[in-house]
Amino acid sequence: MSMPTDAGSAETLGDLGESGVLARIFPRLPAAAAQLLGPGDDAAIVAAPDGRYVVTTDLMVHGPDFRLAWSTPHDLGWKAAASNLSDVAAMGAVPTALVVAIAAPPATPVAMLEGIADGFRDACEALAPGCGVVGGDLSASDTFTIAVTAFGDLEGRVPVLRSGARVGDVVAVSGPLGAAATALRLLFAEAVDADGVPDAARAAALRDRARSQLAPAPPIGDGPLAALAGATAMLDLSDGLAKDAARVADASGVSIDFDSSALGDDPELALGGGEDHSLFATFPPGVELPGGFRRVGAVVSADASRILLDGVPHPATGWDPFTGWDRSAD
Amino acid sequence: MSMPTDAGSAETLGDLGESGVLARIFPRLPAAAAQLLGPGDDAAIVAAPDGRYVVTTDLMVHGPDFRLAWSTPHDLGWKAAASNLSDVAAMGAVPTALVVAIAAPPATPVAMLEGIADGFRDACEALAPGCGVVGGDLSASDTFTIAVTAFGDLEGRVPVLRSGARVGDVVAVSGPLGAAATALRLLFAEAVDADGVPDAARAAALRDRARSQLAPAPPIGDGPLAALAGATAMLDLSDGLAKDAARVADASGVSIDFDSSALGDDPELALGGGEDHSLFATFPPGVELPGGFRRVGAVVSADASRILLDGVPHPATGWDPFTGWDRSAD
Repeated sequence: MSMPTDAGSAETLGDLGESGVLARIFPRLPAAAAQLLGPGDDAAIVAAPDGRYVVTTDLMVHGPDFRLAWSTPHDLGWKAAASNLSDVAAMGAVPTALVVAIAAPPATPVAMLEGIADGFRDACEALAPGCGVVGGDLSASDTFTIAVTAFGDLEGRVPVLRSGARVGDVVAVSGPLGAAATALRLLFAEAVDADGVPDAARAAALRDRARSQLAPAPPIGDGPLAALAGATAMLDLSDGLAKDAARVADASGVSIDFDSSALGDDPELALGGGEDHSLFATFPPGVELPGGFRRVGAVVSADASRILLDGVPHPATGWDPFTGWDRSAD
Repeated sequence: MSMPTDAGSAETLGDLGESGVLARIFPRLPAAAAQLLGPGDDAAIVAAPDGRYVVTTDLMVHGPDFRLAWSTPHDLGWKAAASNLSDVAAMGAVPTALVVAIAAPPATPVAMLEGIADGFRDACEALAPGCGVVGGDLSASDTFTIAVTAFGDLEGRVPVLRSGARVGDVVAVSGPLGAAATALRLLFAEAVDADGVPDAARAAALRDRARSQLAPAPPIGDGPLAALAGATAMLDLSDGLAKDAARVADASGVSIDFDSSALGDDPELALGGGEDHSLFATFPPGVELPGGFRRVGAVVSADASRILLDGVPHPATGWDPFTGWDRSAD
């Protein structure tokens, strides 16, 4: 894997050891309002005033999920937080807490983990105020890996599942469609050297245009708003609109017909591009769409074609970590 | 990394893709009694009748934490479950649920993940009945990695922290001391080929003698029993008795004096050997020790020497993933 070129002169994880690194990291992490006991014991304790808690877990792995030449440490922390907060929001819950486990080569500079911690802090503050990191783990590995588990509070609401979409419902999205995929294409096209190897200097010059991929800002607050507005189904768009909508269609026993005029200049990009972490939801007809939600289609009666575009069957393809990982540009 | 030699003929993760593999794995996993919503949505929902939940997270990485030549897939699942259940128990909580994220090379046989799932199932059934797996994630990686987050219910009890040990308390342990380290030494000595490379056939012949390392069975039920008996401090022995006891000593502002006659034939092995996942606890004097707890020392007044053996200062050294990883035998 590629490491920052000044790694040789910096203090590394191997220099400090696990407890020394954790002592440097934990003070940078955001506190969670729901935290009853934080880092320092065998486990944390989190408040669940609702009597239930929402939990989701996700791995970010160097190679299929990010490239260290393109993402700053702050980006990695931000994106790891944002993508998990979005899964919590997609249940209609308010994110309350995260636990973060990182596996990294012993030669990794401690500054890199400090940057990741800062990214977690800033993403929580910007996207889900009150949410914080209540615990974590650190291990050695040849492959840089970030494992996040996120928690949320339903605040007494009924959770919004994938299985509740009904024929006649409005299909809506909050957040961008295809922006993360466009940014990834840009990075693969222009942030590589002559041999196709990811290049940090070229990526830095493209930062503003690549932000949707490197540090997405999904509309976390719109998840609970959708639940309050009566959303019948919801999910986080991680693998592409068509593939993720097919999951709702499968779980609900319906088909979903997208309106190409609502999908921007490039409907195929909107349908196929993953990693936006926007929210997809269905609402009963007549509901005033809350927050940033906009209509993109309708739930239609179930048949063999689960996903349609302007009434015509459309493939439900998207990202898969095993088939979609282009190892050639590692 | 080394893979099973029949991998070429077996169905792989890359063949099935993420959703195909998950469809094969989830039916094998144990259900959690506290599960309100299981796998299949963006997040799971778990009951927290106590209004709080205990949470701990841990990474197991090929290389520093296990060798695929030594551990069967069932061992890996079992140990990942056991080591996290033990952290929950060490708070005085009853384990309720796990989420499991696995990163693996696309060439990994699906049968390997099925074996890991079976190990999780059997460990939960044997060590923490009622606890199950409520969600997970699967990603591609060059380094086989298992990330577990475990949850527990305090059932209204006050959690047992590291910081509550008081001068005069009895120091006690439930579970083996040094057994996992002895087994690891055996594997390094006898389960390698002439070049020192881990060898699956030799490890198989040593299975019964190496079980404490490959598939430890910590006394999970003794965690809640210790809390009920009034334990003042508790933790899971993951990095070695001396190093872990020093954490209690630091957090509590006391020193801990071990009695060599209570540490078996090899007190240094008992003090230094990690990964037993036995429970360490302190109890007020006069308390009848619950479950499998036995006296191994006493809490004495704080001074510069936090850990003592028969009254003589003893180094608080143990395992660290960054300094303790012997890459030569990868």
